[in-house]
Amino acid sequence: MQQQVSELSIATRGQGLYDITDEVKTAVRASGFSQGLVTVFCRHTSCSLIINENADPDVRHDLEHFMRRLVPENDPAYVHTIEGPDDMPAHIKTALTSTSLGIPLIGGALALGTWQAVYLFEHRSAPHSRHIIVQVMGE
Amino acid sequence: MQQQVSELSIATRGQGLYDITDEVKTAVRASGFSQGLVTVFCRHTSCSLIINENADPDVRHDLEHFMRRLVPENDPAYVHTIEGPDDMPAHIKTALTSTSLGIPLIGGALALGTWQAVYLFEHRSAPHSRHIIVQVMGE
Amino acid sequence: MQQQVSELSIATRGQGLYDITDEVKTAVRASGFSQGLVTVFCRHTSCSLIINENADPDVRHDLEHFMRRLVPENDPAYVHTIEGPDDMPAHIKTALTSTSLGIPLIGGALALGTWQAVYLFEHRSAPHSRHIIVQVMGE
Repeated sequence: MQQQVSELSIATRGQGLYDITDEVKTAVRASGFSQGLVTVFCRHTSCSLIINENADPDVRHDLEHFMRRLVPENDPAYVHTIEGPDDMPAHIKTALTSTSLGIPLIGGALALGTWQAVYLFEHRSAPHSRHIIVQVMGE
Repeated sequence: MQQQVSELSIATRGQGLYDITDEVKTAVRASGFSQGLVTVFCRHTSCSLIINENADPDVRHDLEHFMRRLVPENDPAYVHTIEGPDDMPAHIKTALTSTSLGIPLIGGALALGTWQAVYLFEHRSAPHSRHIIVQVMGE
Repeated sequence: MQQQVSELSIATRGQGLYDITDEVKTAVRASGFSQGLVTVFCRHTSCSLIINENADPDVRHDLEHFMRRLVPENDPAYVHTIEGPDDMPAHIKTALTSTSLGIPLIGGALALGTWQAVYLFEHRSAPHSRHIIVQVMGE
């Protein structure tokens, strides 16, 4: 069993869910492994990762809206405001979702179900270049 | 180091927490490995996984109630309503909990603490058959 | 590829975020491995793990405050009150954050980004000794 590592650079253009399933699959394919464990790791604290529905875009819309309402900008309770109104909510949303995902690789394919996509969840409003590690431990 | 994979089929009968610790342990035992990493992966976007208390059933009750109140059905903000009032809340609850869990396997036993159980968290009201991957990488 | 396991004992002195990055790094260094996958696993259901910002202490303050407000003590809906007002909120906060984290180990270093720290998130008010597994699978 061996390890292969890639780093994805994902350009984001504001808050929202970015489907990175194809980028993850390409990185896994490049490893040449057919079985093992894929770890997707986000190297930031103001964006995060989730696995969620890949079909109806309204699901993404509603999920983004729910999170913005649950963790509002300009909450008078925030002390950390120096990096802008979207920064403290970004850290909270990151804590409530995931920074790393483990996905089994079986018979050459990720074990994702039919309706599952891997999303980078950008919580900042300004454009960013986000670095995501895709590690495959396998053979 | 090698890999063994099982797929659990869990029959759910409505929203709530289903203790799948025994099923996970059985799958791990069948691998024959005594040390490694167990990845439990849920292949759905309207149910999820958590590790939580295994003792007082009131904890499960209160956790289920909290999540239903935090992510209510029939929220007028939802656009995605075509799959029923429980579907969009299901996707949100999935994002707020976990789709994959990594649990070390040490000396033939899962590293779970005394009070920890692995739960499938069903967020849909109708009965479903849920597919959960249990992957063991070890020896 | 092989496995090394350590168990950290972390003394907590009430609710809040405890930076355990140095303890995790020390455990990983002791494994002698330079590449692989590090799994950090919390063996409790009333404290949890997150990766979040390591710079401004106000971020920790605001995150702790947000979680206390989202999951209040003495909520009249709770049935599980026998272990004190902070226990049921602790289980809920654990479900909303993480019990296990997977972090790639690359070239002898954890793949953490510049601003990322690993935190033990203590949700109980009384002092506790918390047991955290650090498993390294690698070489």
